[in-house]
Amino acid sequence: MTTVVDKPSAAEATTGEEKKDAQVGELTRPRNVPRNRRPHIVIIGGGFAGISAAKTLRHADVRITVIDRTNHFVFQPLLYQVATAALAPSDITAPIRAILRSQKNTEVLLGEVQRIDPDRKVVVFGTESREITYDYLILTTGAKHSYFGHNEWEKDAPGLKTISDAREIRQRFLVAFEQAEQAADAAKKAEWMTFVLVGAGPTGCELAGVMPEIARRALREDFRHVDTDATRVILIEAGPRILATFPEDLAQEAKKDLEKLGVEIRTGDPVTAIDDRGVTLKSGAHIPTRTVIWAAGNAASPLAKDLGAPLDRAGRVQVNPDLSVPGHPEVYVAGDLAAFTQKNGKPVPAVAQGAIQGGRRAAQNILLQDKGETTVPFNYFDKGNLAVIGRNKAIADLNFVHLKGFFAWMTWLFIHILYLVGFRNRLSVLMQWAYAYLTFQRGARLIDDDRKV
Amino acid sequence: MTTVVDKPSAAEATTGEEKKDAQVGELTRPRNVPRNRRPHIVIIGGGFAGISAAKTLRHADVRITVIDRTNHFVFQPLLYQVATAALAPSDITAPIRAILRSQKNTEVLLGEVQRIDPDRKVVVFGTESREITYDYLILTTGAKHSYFGHNEWEKDAPGLKTISDAREIRQRFLVAFEQAEQAADAAKKAEWMTFVLVGAGPTGCELAGVMPEIARRALREDFRHVDTDATRVILIEAGPRILATFPEDLAQEAKKDLEKLGVEIRTGDPVTAIDDRGVTLKSGAHIPTRTVIWAAGNAASPLAKDLGAPLDRAGRVQVNPDLSVPGHPEVYVAGDLAAFTQKNGKPVPAVAQGAIQGGRRAAQNILLQDKGETTVPFNYFDKGNLAVIGRNKAIADLNFVHLKGFFAWMTWLFIHILYLVGFRNRLSVLMQWAYAYLTFQRGARLIDDDRKV
Repeated sequence: MTTVVDKPSAAEATTGEEKKDAQVGELTRPRNVPRNRRPHIVIIGGGFAGISAAKTLRHADVRITVIDRTNHFVFQPLLYQVATAALAPSDITAPIRAILRSQKNTEVLLGEVQRIDPDRKVVVFGTESREITYDYLILTTGAKHSYFGHNEWEKDAPGLKTISDAREIRQRFLVAFEQAEQAADAAKKAEWMTFVLVGAGPTGCELAGVMPEIARRALREDFRHVDTDATRVILIEAGPRILATFPEDLAQEAKKDLEKLGVEIRTGDPVTAIDDRGVTLKSGAHIPTRTVIWAAGNAASPLAKDLGAPLDRAGRVQVNPDLSVPGHPEVYVAGDLAAFTQKNGKPVPAVAQGAIQGGRRAAQNILLQDKGETTVPFNYFDKGNLAVIGRNKAIADLNFVHLKGFFAWMTWLFIHILYLVGFRNRLSVLMQWAYAYLTFQRGARLIDDDRKV
Repeated sequence: MTTVVDKPSAAEATTGEEKKDAQVGELTRPRNVPRNRRPHIVIIGGGFAGISAAKTLRHADVRITVIDRTNHFVFQPLLYQVATAALAPSDITAPIRAILRSQKNTEVLLGEVQRIDPDRKVVVFGTESREITYDYLILTTGAKHSYFGHNEWEKDAPGLKTISDAREIRQRFLVAFEQAEQAADAAKKAEWMTFVLVGAGPTGCELAGVMPEIARRALREDFRHVDTDATRVILIEAGPRILATFPEDLAQEAKKDLEKLGVEIRTGDPVTAIDDRGVTLKSGAHIPTRTVIWAAGNAASPLAKDLGAPLDRAGRVQVNPDLSVPGHPEVYVAGDLAAFTQKNGKPVPAVAQGAIQGGRRAAQNILLQDKGETTVPFNYFDKGNLAVIGRNKAIADLNFVHLKGFFAWMTWLFIHILYLVGFRNRLSVLMQWAYAYLTFQRGARLIDDDRKV
């Protein structure tokens, strides 16, 4: 058991950024650290929220430690492109170390956090159970997929949250065609050629939109005993319509686009059973299939429980208006792990912008609190909502305008390239997209060699 | 248990290519297939030899089945670039299906071959033990690394033959720095910062040449508690000198270049023990290290035994001059699995050119044999030998001239880009190289999320 101690580095000037917000202050928090030492801020999680928090603090006179289970930041909105073999994992990831390299007040530690002890202000992490103490904590460990109490479904219906997930789905998708090629009879072939997506949120719809195209264009000439046109992609949704977080008209448009691509959509019919041979629905319908992808529920990171604060039904922390945790003013939660209701009564959606803005607010509030000033409530600014449907269509809800079709897709493409971390990734992704768009081919059709067929 | 039967496709004209060679014929083989049906040629292995054989037969009036354990061809000479995080796995691989897509007389099956029954002319493959019969067989399953009877070393000293191997080495290499960052004391830190390469052939030397540069340039700014300059890279060779297959003067030059990069070279001192804390040498020296990479011995694919033909000490098949197998004129072996001595008394080296030329010769001989004509002995044409040392140096033995330094490196770069399969890969690799060259960064620093630290 070792305590990791940071070498204090040269002091850096704070920005005036947080001063602007101070006047809107609502909550006054006690100072947490004596004036004569630099506070240590630990950020758990290197996703959108965690990186945003760390970057916000880049000029602050504090010591920052970012702890993550993995060494890389994942650009989540493009995960489905890795899962469908268009992009390589390294195209949408960047080492957290590299992102924060020039930020001298920050260090990065690789390791899974086992537990938080908010009374001792200690985080326990890594296989060797190292301890690290904090003055302030920002918890941004987000959510993973939830099977609504049916964890036994996981092995037959993997979700899509991490690079490993994406690689697993990519392999199942590619192996299915290989198995269909070798299948002894038509029924078996049909099982392998049927792909079921559970959950018609953005992830489910984006996967559904791209799969028929791959079968019909990218793989068509590659197989001798498979009619790739016979591929069935079935999108199942428990709720009454697809894309519940989008306005009705855009969801309708997306539905039309998906159906034009040949996707079969079943709404209002929840899944009741999943095994390695198929999916059963509440209506009694049974779909024989070998490939199911779970894009339905989310469950909060279990670390939330350690904070001793009230959780919502999904296990997320019910934070104060300034994103701090009830009972622990020095602990903040940002991103998908925070349950936060906006003034308009709607929750902050679990999208990149919610995490980026939350991370920034938590970091700014820590600086205010540390100066003995009042913190500022989180105010989510909705920049809009995008989902891509197939090869060159998308829907975009930019609040002031609803876009659809090719123009929405161009918007999507531009925004995603813009927000990708790093010049190399942007160039690489643009190139892979151009290649995929022009040739109908997928650049990353790699099945691991340890996968036995 | 199913027999996969191919649908005969439209007959295609044979090329006259093989006619040219016929006059040099030496061995007359019996016709193997009645004139009224198209012979079925099964190729096991989709590496350089297998793909070369299949492509040679693209216009022939035969049915071809290529079986491989994986769905992808690997451009082996660049594997070390994946292992050192410069390139992504998908940059140096291409789906075998995609390579052979337009070749209508060919089908591709994914599955590991379990055994060959040369008397029944049957290949058994895949987890379901499917059987496939052949008229002619080309076996190109190559070699994997051998631990000279010390298989217990494998877990602590992985080799570099497949994409999985490369990903494993990449992770160990990157994790070592993460562990060094967190190490409690200097001795532990030093263990993590020491990298031992066993075997100073091209793979060992290429890895050794690139590792110091990564530590000193790419990772330098990323760590707070590690002096990346303290990285030790130690290259161990049992034989008297490095790069035994290269001429003495070039090997000397490479040695100088490596030493300039800070690589410690120990020749004439074989490894006697490896465990998770270090390597022991015959001289008694012990090197404490957490990261060992095996680049020493090769062992032939175990399928060679099924042929009942004489094997050499490394388990390779001692083929006839026309690459057919003694006792089985309808079975050919090409690539690293064939033990073949040239007229000059030297063995055909285990390099891409040897495999490409062998695969072509085996395929051409099958066509000759099938027409009742005499087969042609294999004649390896040595195009030269290349190894890259570090960032922008290489050695090249082009027979008529020995190149070294930057010019050899440019030659290496040009040849490797030229031979890479597919436009997308060439463009992607060039871009990644340009990026790595200009910025000193590595584009694919990805540690899997299921790797616990």
